[in-house]
Amino acid sequence: MNLSDISSPAALKSLSQKELQALAGEIRGAIIRTVAVNGGHLASNLGVVELTIALHRTFDCPQDKIIFDVGHQCYAHKILTGRYEQLPTLRKMNGLSGFPRREESPCDAYSTGHASTAISAALGMARARDMRGEDYQVVAVVGDGAMTGGMCYEALNDAGSTQTPMMVVLNDNGMSISRNVGALSGQLTRLRMSRGWLGAKKNVAEALNRIPVVGKSLHRFFQRVKNGLRNVLVKDRFFTSLGFEYFGPIDGHDIVGMEKVFRQCRKIHKPIVIHVATKKGMGFAQAEERPEKYHGVAPFELENGNVRGTEGPSLGKQAGEYITALAENRKDICAVTAAMTASTGFSSFAARFPERLFDVGIAEEHAVTLAAGMAAAGMRPFAAIYETFLQRAYDQVLEDVCLQRLPVCLMMDRAGLGGEDGPTHHGVFGVSMLRPMPGLTLLAPRCIEELKGMIDWFLRQDGPAAIRYPRSMAEGSIPYTGPFSAGHWETLKPGGEAAILASSAILRECLEAAQSLKNDGINAAVINASTLSPLDEQTLLRLTAGRIPLVTVEEHCLAGGFGSAVAAWCAKEGAAAPIAMLGLPDRFIPHGGRGQLLQRYGLDGESIARQVKEALRK
Amino acid sequence: MNLSDISSPAALKSLSQKELQALAGEIRGAIIRTVAVNGGHLASNLGVVELTIALHRTFDCPQDKIIFDVGHQCYAHKILTGRYEQLPTLRKMNGLSGFPRREESPCDAYSTGHASTAISAALGMARARDMRGEDYQVVAVVGDGAMTGGMCYEALNDAGSTQTPMMVVLNDNGMSISRNVGALSGQLTRLRMSRGWLGAKKNVAEALNRIPVVGKSLHRFFQRVKNGLRNVLVKDRFFTSLGFEYFGPIDGHDIVGMEKVFRQCRKIHKPIVIHVATKKGMGFAQAEERPEKYHGVAPFELENGNVRGTEGPSLGKQAGEYITALAENRKDICAVTAAMTASTGFSSFAARFPERLFDVGIAEEHAVTLAAGMAAAGMRPFAAIYETFLQRAYDQVLEDVCLQRLPVCLMMDRAGLGGEDGPTHHGVFGVSMLRPMPGLTLLAPRCIEELKGMIDWFLRQDGPAAIRYPRSMAEGSIPYTGPFSAGHWETLKPGGEAAILASSAILRECLEAAQSLKNDGINAAVINASTLSPLDEQTLLRLTAGRIPLVTVEEHCLAGGFGSAVAAWCAKEGAAAPIAMLGLPDRFIPHGGRGQLLQRYGLDGESIARQVKEALRK
Repeated sequence: MNLSDISSPAALKSLSQKELQALAGEIRGAIIRTVAVNGGHLASNLGVVELTIALHRTFDCPQDKIIFDVGHQCYAHKILTGRYEQLPTLRKMNGLSGFPRREESPCDAYSTGHASTAISAALGMARARDMRGEDYQVVAVVGDGAMTGGMCYEALNDAGSTQTPMMVVLNDNGMSISRNVGALSGQLTRLRMSRGWLGAKKNVAEALNRIPVVGKSLHRFFQRVKNGLRNVLVKDRFFTSLGFEYFGPIDGHDIVGMEKVFRQCRKIHKPIVIHVATKKGMGFAQAEERPEKYHGVAPFELENGNVRGTEGPSLGKQAGEYITALAENRKDICAVTAAMTASTGFSSFAARFPERLFDVGIAEEHAVTLAAGMAAAGMRPFAAIYETFLQRAYDQVLEDVCLQRLPVCLMMDRAGLGGEDGPTHHGVFGVSMLRPMPGLTLLAPRCIEELKGMIDWFLRQDGPAAIRYPRSMAEGSIPYTGPFSAGHWETLKPGGEAAILASSAILRECLEAAQSLKNDGINAAVINASTLSPLDEQTLLRLTAGRIPLVTVEEHCLAGGFGSAVAAWCAKEGAAAPIAMLGLPDRFIPHGGRGQLLQRYGLDGESIARQVKEALRK
Repeated sequence: MNLSDISSPAALKSLSQKELQALAGEIRGAIIRTVAVNGGHLASNLGVVELTIALHRTFDCPQDKIIFDVGHQCYAHKILTGRYEQLPTLRKMNGLSGFPRREESPCDAYSTGHASTAISAALGMARARDMRGEDYQVVAVVGDGAMTGGMCYEALNDAGSTQTPMMVVLNDNGMSISRNVGALSGQLTRLRMSRGWLGAKKNVAEALNRIPVVGKSLHRFFQRVKNGLRNVLVKDRFFTSLGFEYFGPIDGHDIVGMEKVFRQCRKIHKPIVIHVATKKGMGFAQAEERPEKYHGVAPFELENGNVRGTEGPSLGKQAGEYITALAENRKDICAVTAAMTASTGFSSFAARFPERLFDVGIAEEHAVTLAAGMAAAGMRPFAAIYETFLQRAYDQVLEDVCLQRLPVCLMMDRAGLGGEDGPTHHGVFGVSMLRPMPGLTLLAPRCIEELKGMIDWFLRQDGPAAIRYPRSMAEGSIPYTGPFSAGHWETLKPGGEAAILASSAILRECLEAAQSLKNDGINAAVINASTLSPLDEQTLLRLTAGRIPLVTVEEHCLAGGFGSAVAAWCAKEGAAAPIAMLGLPDRFIPHGGRGQLLQRYGLDGESIARQVKEALRK
């Protein structure tokens, strides 16, 4: 059995049980070797190898539609759908995406990246199928972590009520990225631990074998299946209350057993949840032991799992530690996270003040309004959410936090280009999303010291704030002297011929550009515009009075971004200064290294210098 | 009993059962009389009069926190918390808000307007209370309609898992704005129809009376309550599966019965759902019979309920009828609504093609991804959602619809100033929200004919589109000749001295301004910039070549709006034309008549003319 022989899922169908097991081992090896070199999602992919094989033996892609929720567990799926040869390009610029992408393969039925969308999309496809009189299966593969997202409930509630035939495979590994939270998760654990499940591992397949071949009466057949499985399956309240048939839990590493269940279930024309228990990291000891560490991982050494290189200290972690220290004296400080306590840097807070940290699971909408409620009752919550995931809570930031002027501090980690994870993970819409929100102070620090100053400032005032920062930043050579005061931009480098305005990590490229310009005899100022809203009108007045070109630089989309705000301000003031706006174009930014992407979009130091010169020529 | 004697909820506590009933009648009368004159939410407010009285007799506001989900059912609450005298100002500019507002009264614990936030906010307050070592009750009052929103599930799942003491009063009238949908709703109906509930009306109070006074063991007490009520209450699966204790259903028009249950429940320090059955429109025959019509209603005649005046034909209704006609031949057309089928104008579609219209309940996130799934499987879905509620689906529009370039048409009804409903209902962030989304064509028609042209255009091309339009528009005198083609702006009135650029309803004010300018000898062009994204660069090049002032006008926030996009374009092109940007300032816009608000913010015809003159003087 050679992986390169699997040119399509059809090749799986003739394999023996023994060959399937060997195949699973080979897929695991390929995943581990690839992620060791390229980085990527490891533990989740190792957990679903057998599940993916069983799905592809039961269903016919691309005719049948398999939708992977979140999508970071799609590596085995990519290998089995003709992309094994391209695996070395995984997550590389112009290479395979780490997520399902419709444009990459017809077997990628739906592009995902953010959690909890698959059931809605699957229901949409199932309804389209029924409206068009077509005949295929739609399967949503959803992790138990993603089940904490409200969209899943909205979709289950809808599908259960109309009884649209579709399948939800609940891939339950007892965790999302962090150990799982929520009442439903507790219930799933009880289901997994129940006698039925412990007995089911062997018995599901046998029980199904005893059921006679399906007759014309689907209802009667369905009853037989239910009766046949009654002794080995357990009672679920949640899914059945929403109108779904529930089957499970079944062993997610038993290919033949899963396949039998899937084959029986596809004959039942109803909405069905199949609860599959898997082990995250399966087959790689370090990942089994520490699935959180090996969720998304940088390149590592195959022998021992040691992660190579250093990404620099995480800003979130340092900020989390700083807030933890402040919380010793400020009893009103608390924190809200959305299944990302460790990766947003709030582990130290969780350890020191467990009673003041609330991980709500993958539920950003709830996270923000929960924080708003806390603030309305006298607390000072920090809500730590990746910039791209905060998009889920746009309405709550606007209507709950801003409209009530509540002192919630949104800690927007992973702002800017997200690199290898691609378009769903770049934080490049945060400014356009938040700048129009009245009363929200929007900040972006250039170093950890400025970030600490922003936290201090937030605690001194009474309104909402959002601080966007990347995972890490190269340390700059210019020390931050503070104290931070919102609305006052810092001149990092004086200069009378042009002014470069930017914030956060990209200031480094701006300073490089200024150095390069200086070498060419051009003296450009570099301004740290770390308050994105409101603008520092004093500084703008001073700069535009000189009529020198203003060059705004942002690691963000140009539409609605910082540059357009400066342009609008200049237009309003009738300022005569010419403006050049550098940033990301009006399209989705693919995956690739941050440096590569900056270069492609003209945001590296040399490109910035060149564009400043162009602005000077105009 | 005079309503003006009720200066605070404390005054309720000494009233007899008979006086309470009389009070309920007086509150109903006051609500009906006020809404008959001012317009407002009628049916929902009439349904919760007894519930509100029972809450205020049990809980002590402002110390205890009552959070009204959505908030449009707060009139009785406002009357009972010292605002009866201000009732005639309800929904008038500078008068009482139609929604709870923290700035209006300390008894308004939390401002609401959009559905499904109350449980999250209540949990936040309950946790803040516990962190601060305080002692008060937190109660979320949530309609069964709002329970279809995923945020409710996220919050229940979180609260149930940590067992934070709080109460959710599920106000179940079997509908939200439309007749309710979803599997949970079906379950609630079954609960209401069950033997337990039919017997419970009388028996709950009696059963509670038989329970001895609480001892030290809360757990034992709780068991007694449960046992005592076992015969009169029914089994719930949904809430109990999420870790909540469920009580109900109980009669939502029996003040004394409800009060007894609330008093017992407040002694149980756990998360509790109390399922209360109410009748929407209770006490006003027309509203009881047609609660949908009397949900949000214009001023009407007291005697017969006839709605006064005419608001003009609804654009949504006409668009819905047009799409219905197209769907006769285009089998790929389908529609998705979010508990707003009638108010978004899709009733005709629902009647003609029930198998192609999907009302998903108050679940905008799911609605958009459902539509994306349909589009990915070959359909052409129209998703009709009010502009302000589409904010809930920001992430889904970006990551599901736009990233996959799926042909979903977002029908954004109620764009622009929402008038008397105030800040949570103005559609004034839609442009800043959607313009930065790559590949999304953003449109705003000036009349129903142009809207039809946009629908035709959407069906001819392959990408996503969003069309924003107000409820209705005054008919213009300039006929629309079409055909519509995205990206081409129409010159409504030529003119060589200045150019006014705008879209949608506010073009009327722009044309008035142009007329007024003409009377003063100034010849200003009026451009129908009905494609907001992408901009019509040809027209902009032509206009800026003349170096005449460009005046952008928008019924939208200035930050990130149309004007800022034009300013950024001019800056990018180095266009020398001066620009004046008229629109809404960087703050939340209060409630008030649209005309009043336009005047206040300088967007009426005369103000626009004045500002064009100013631009000419510069």
